[in-house]
Amino acid sequence: MLLVWLPLLSLGLAAHQPVARRLAPRARAAAPRARASADASHADVVGALPVVYRGPNGTPLLDMIASPADIKRLAPTQLRQLAMELRHETLCAVSQTGGHLGSSLGVVELTVALHYVFNAPEDPICWDVSHQVYPHKILTGRRARMSTLRQKGGLSGFAKRSESPYDPFGAGHSSTSISAALGMAVGHKLNGISAQRNSIAVIGDGAITGGMAYEAMNNAAYLNTKVVVVLNDNGQVSLPTGTQSAGGVGPAGALSAYTSRLLTSKPFLDFRSFAKSFSSLLPEEIQAVNKRIDAFTRGALQGGTLFEELGFYYVGPVDGHDLANLVPILENIRDRRDDKPVLLHIKTEKGYGYPPAVGAPDKYHGVPKFDVPTGYQYAGPKSRPSYTSIFAAALIEHAQDDINVVAITAAMPGGTGIDKFGKRFPKRTFDVGIAEQHAVTFAAGLAIEGLKPFVAIYSTFLQRGYDQVVHDVVTQKLPVRFILDRAGLVGNDGPTHHGSFDLAYLGCLPDLVIMAPSDELELLHMIATAYELESLPSAIRFPRGNALGLEAMREQLGYDISAMPAKGTALPIGRGRYVKRADASRSKRVALLSLGTRLAPAMQAARALEEDADFGGTLGVTVADARFMKPLDMQLLRELAAQHDVLITIEEGSVGGFGDHVLHVLALDGALDEGKLRVRPMVLPDHFIEAGTQPEQYDEAGLSAPFIVATVRKLLGKSRVLV
Amino acid sequence: MLLVWLPLLSLGLAAHQPVARRLAPRARAAAPRARASADASHADVVGALPVVYRGPNGTPLLDMIASPADIKRLAPTQLRQLAMELRHETLCAVSQTGGHLGSSLGVVELTVALHYVFNAPEDPICWDVSHQVYPHKILTGRRARMSTLRQKGGLSGFAKRSESPYDPFGAGHSSTSISAALGMAVGHKLNGISAQRNSIAVIGDGAITGGMAYEAMNNAAYLNTKVVVVLNDNGQVSLPTGTQSAGGVGPAGALSAYTSRLLTSKPFLDFRSFAKSFSSLLPEEIQAVNKRIDAFTRGALQGGTLFEELGFYYVGPVDGHDLANLVPILENIRDRRDDKPVLLHIKTEKGYGYPPAVGAPDKYHGVPKFDVPTGYQYAGPKSRPSYTSIFAAALIEHAQDDINVVAITAAMPGGTGIDKFGKRFPKRTFDVGIAEQHAVTFAAGLAIEGLKPFVAIYSTFLQRGYDQVVHDVVTQKLPVRFILDRAGLVGNDGPTHHGSFDLAYLGCLPDLVIMAPSDELELLHMIATAYELESLPSAIRFPRGNALGLEAMREQLGYDISAMPAKGTALPIGRGRYVKRADASRSKRVALLSLGTRLAPAMQAARALEEDADFGGTLGVTVADARFMKPLDMQLLRELAAQHDVLITIEEGSVGGFGDHVLHVLALDGALDEGKLRVRPMVLPDHFIEAGTQPEQYDEAGLSAPFIVATVRKLLGKSRVLV
Repeated sequence: MLLVWLPLLSLGLAAHQPVARRLAPRARAAAPRARASADASHADVVGALPVVYRGPNGTPLLDMIASPADIKRLAPTQLRQLAMELRHETLCAVSQTGGHLGSSLGVVELTVALHYVFNAPEDPICWDVSHQVYPHKILTGRRARMSTLRQKGGLSGFAKRSESPYDPFGAGHSSTSISAALGMAVGHKLNGISAQRNSIAVIGDGAITGGMAYEAMNNAAYLNTKVVVVLNDNGQVSLPTGTQSAGGVGPAGALSAYTSRLLTSKPFLDFRSFAKSFSSLLPEEIQAVNKRIDAFTRGALQGGTLFEELGFYYVGPVDGHDLANLVPILENIRDRRDDKPVLLHIKTEKGYGYPPAVGAPDKYHGVPKFDVPTGYQYAGPKSRPSYTSIFAAALIEHAQDDINVVAITAAMPGGTGIDKFGKRFPKRTFDVGIAEQHAVTFAAGLAIEGLKPFVAIYSTFLQRGYDQVVHDVVTQKLPVRFILDRAGLVGNDGPTHHGSFDLAYLGCLPDLVIMAPSDELELLHMIATAYELESLPSAIRFPRGNALGLEAMREQLGYDISAMPAKGTALPIGRGRYVKRADASRSKRVALLSLGTRLAPAMQAARALEEDADFGGTLGVTVADARFMKPLDMQLLRELAAQHDVLITIEEGSVGGFGDHVLHVLALDGALDEGKLRVRPMVLPDHFIEAGTQPEQYDEAGLSAPFIVATVRKLLGKSRVLV
Repeated sequence: MLLVWLPLLSLGLAAHQPVARRLAPRARAAAPRARASADASHADVVGALPVVYRGPNGTPLLDMIASPADIKRLAPTQLRQLAMELRHETLCAVSQTGGHLGSSLGVVELTVALHYVFNAPEDPICWDVSHQVYPHKILTGRRARMSTLRQKGGLSGFAKRSESPYDPFGAGHSSTSISAALGMAVGHKLNGISAQRNSIAVIGDGAITGGMAYEAMNNAAYLNTKVVVVLNDNGQVSLPTGTQSAGGVGPAGALSAYTSRLLTSKPFLDFRSFAKSFSSLLPEEIQAVNKRIDAFTRGALQGGTLFEELGFYYVGPVDGHDLANLVPILENIRDRRDDKPVLLHIKTEKGYGYPPAVGAPDKYHGVPKFDVPTGYQYAGPKSRPSYTSIFAAALIEHAQDDINVVAITAAMPGGTGIDKFGKRFPKRTFDVGIAEQHAVTFAAGLAIEGLKPFVAIYSTFLQRGYDQVVHDVVTQKLPVRFILDRAGLVGNDGPTHHGSFDLAYLGCLPDLVIMAPSDELELLHMIATAYELESLPSAIRFPRGNALGLEAMREQLGYDISAMPAKGTALPIGRGRYVKRADASRSKRVALLSLGTRLAPAMQAARALEEDADFGGTLGVTVADARFMKPLDMQLLRELAAQHDVLITIEEGSVGGFGDHVLHVLALDGALDEGKLRVRPMVLPDHFIEAGTQPEQYDEAGLSAPFIVATVRKLLGKSRVLV
């Protein structure tokens, strides 16, 4: 029996060492390019554009591509040229609109190869997260609309089913593609068409750390379907040990590419099938040993043991920019005869082919409009700090005074401001990867040990850790502090990224203290409140974008403020505040009760209403800031109900949130029984709001000042439409 | 360089084959025991109780244990006797109360060993899911209260922080323990006490398939803390390839136990450290190769490559019932010097030591009261089918007529009824493991291919797949059908298992059709509705337990029904129904608007109110069944509002749900402006309801008929308290 597998093993060992050796020089050679400076002068950069097409004839090959079918008509040798033109086109398009640049540039060759080899849309290609989908959009009939990317009425910045049959699965959040592709593959099988179909998931090395991807891989191996997972490894995270090539990071070497091609070619697959059927005649325990040894040799040879262990046929790592290798490998994968899932591990470079992006992948991950030759980014004037940066600065203040303050992010250190915290307190900062579920429960464990964890996470991504919030934090009343950035409408990222539901999905949970600041000063106070709250879990939700700034706080909110304090002061739990009280002498009185940053438009509306000539000076408007969604301020609510004719609640959240909680307690309190009060909740509409700027979206949602004015006017019988 | 690692590899190979060989006979020998019949006669069973202590002297050792400190005073040779007594005690306790039996019996030896070796509560022991926690409760000062298990005011059936300092982390849902233990371990590190502490997570082979566990393991390897993961492998699922011992399933053999002990002893660890520091002097690529080869040899030798790949120090598999091996292995793990996380893989048998449970692990996973000697389970009389079984039968009917109907469960085939479906349609049934996230998105992929997926999941567990419902199903309007079993209050499982929040967390989502049947006939109609709904996603939520039965439907709901149809008829989307209309001649009119199975108590309350002498025949009560939480039936709501003085909404759900959506639309509609209508939402209270029977819980929640009556009486000025 030893004879059966020892030769196989020796083969693996013999081949192993040269792989490791020959990988190394190439990896070293690649390093300087990866460090190309983002500050290079114009001339330097233009001179260093070897893979971006800038020929005198425009984009002749790309001009011939109306759909992927046209790509298949090209000669294999033309694909590199097409890729160059496609990269050029992608660069030019994004330079005009802004968007996700680096990831798209990194998958240009892969996109060309996938459409050349596979038969989309029959073979569904599911792009994980899908911000890398711009080259795919250009090749699938959407080239002419690229100038509308991420704008109101334009192309989505992500894959979107309603946009094209070539987008079989929309995304925005990560780690979903393998589940989706697996579902489609099983669908093909049940529909009896699986022999002709492959289902492809393209997933990054970051996204594959999400637990959902692991669940899907576990299931894929069990189901035996024609799923192809392309692991696009652009070095965004450290992969678990064993998934990296032995030679270290960086694009894979030539020999490795050759080995991968060999391993996926039919003769080798046939040999493996033969060996398998032969060993099935052996006693059971020997079969199992054989199977393991087979996996080990392949693992030792190539470095994909983790995926082999999960039941995948692993191929790689392969240079994802080398079309001459990528195409035949994908063809071999396409034409394989068995149904075992395949994982193709490719190495790519984020921003590949565009030196400014290669040199500063973070800066070119998402970009505003920019100048292609120099990489200069036309960022708008930024006079005011963002809520994110104010949170980060305040948390640093608290952490300076208290060594128990710790911060947790799930792979969004930059977006959440935890990067700044991490620079000051590296040992108290935890980036757990794309792992929101773990992030929440990990924080629960920290809280149990007496630490003060702040989990900073986008509102939309906390959906991924919802059960953990309920089951691990809230039922145990652990003082974890959730910082929900990007709550409400988020602008150009559109429907998948709005933080619309947090007030509803958190508001129903007992014992969770929920706050929303109306401005940056309030944010400071709420951070201090959460910091001091030791007995209960708490959440603070605030929107994407710039805070009000001192001037606006003075002018719009009437604050007497000349400078921002470094830290806030803890608020009494569950108490709101008046920002403006209606003059008691006015005959009609309206209360606007706002939660969060809709306070400024509410104040604007209040002034407009009081000055509204149609009311002839009879209308008084109170504006209150609820501060807390939970617990609600019953005293404030009773006063507002008793002293006003109209109560409007305003929030940047869905139905089932703040306004409906207010209605609930007012109803129970009997405050609606007398008919003296007319209440209207103003919430986000019950549909998804497409991409656009935030102001456009507030208008579409009917949550800007003119809509508040119109709501009150209509209620008070002034029918002239102002909006 | 070859010289460095080739000898290590040969060592692995030489040792490997005997392991496989010597495992096999033991595994075979164990098989007959595992198949001991559950139907064995009394005498057979009693004669076969070798490991349950039934001596004449009671439980002398266990009687000495007031806390884990007392265990440490025992001689190692006494531990087996203690385990026998503990198993006996566990059996006797659960036979009186019912509860989770099989898992608890399987970890008796592990529980004794953990408390003997580690120093709880300073060393936190986090029990995953924690239904295996009964022996732990008995050893940690709660023995006398075991008779109150899972009852109102009694011990929880799970680990619970508020119950004991020995329960550092509560659970109920799976896969959370590694994250929690890791958080605590990092806490120990930050608090400067990590040298004296180990954080332990005990997790089953089922729970470790959850994505969250993978996220935690990924992070654990990175953080380098003293986390000990005990993988309690009782063969509940097929582990991913490579995590099983080469010799197949079944308790691990003697040699394997010896190897594990060897590998965790200090000399070997020291040799590994030495090898590591030596190889750090070698060029980088050779170091990487060495590391991998080291892992491979250990993997080939033992079978834990997956965990080694994830960065754990893997030990196992070890016989989890063999204390003579388990204790020294745990001692070696406890006393290790480095901070690398350890995974100890033990093999146990569910129900170990109690032949009826070993022979039928499913039947003895959770049990009612039973007779210890025979295993006879005292199930109450079961005259009425459960909602679960009615769903299963109806889905089978639809699937008979339509090959596109498919069913998905996340490791709960029995609890959701999908087991019955699976017997009829094995190829259309998908048990994806403990992987709710994947289950949802996998279903989305199936829907895209034209299949009609029904995802059957407990309400509380769908929280785990919330983001996937929002991001993958709802934003894409894919016709996935969610079947939410165990919605509302669930009885003895208590707070972690109530399905209280689904109406709030789903109600806020656009385009999701949400239904709740008032009885089993309505459930049939709603399944037919979801089946036919091709353009939108839908959800049906229903409670745990028995349906009404024909007699109750006739008597309580006034149905003219003599037999249940096999299938229902699709309902018009978003239309409710009147069940009883108030007599228009009555001077006071009350409307009770119910969603779901609170309809029967609402009808009961309606009759009581109309017959209430205090009203002297002046009160008329309308009862309506909303059927749909979303979309709401505006016409019905307007009629109810216009024609009644009082409107009570009743639901088995939290604040922010059905009643608050009704208030929202009535407010916007102006129906509350006139003061003619008094509205009161009746929902679950805003705190967690502890374990008890469902009727006890409905009373505690104030949602049974007398509370509806009391609410109306109070509103109408009848102050005499009836509840």
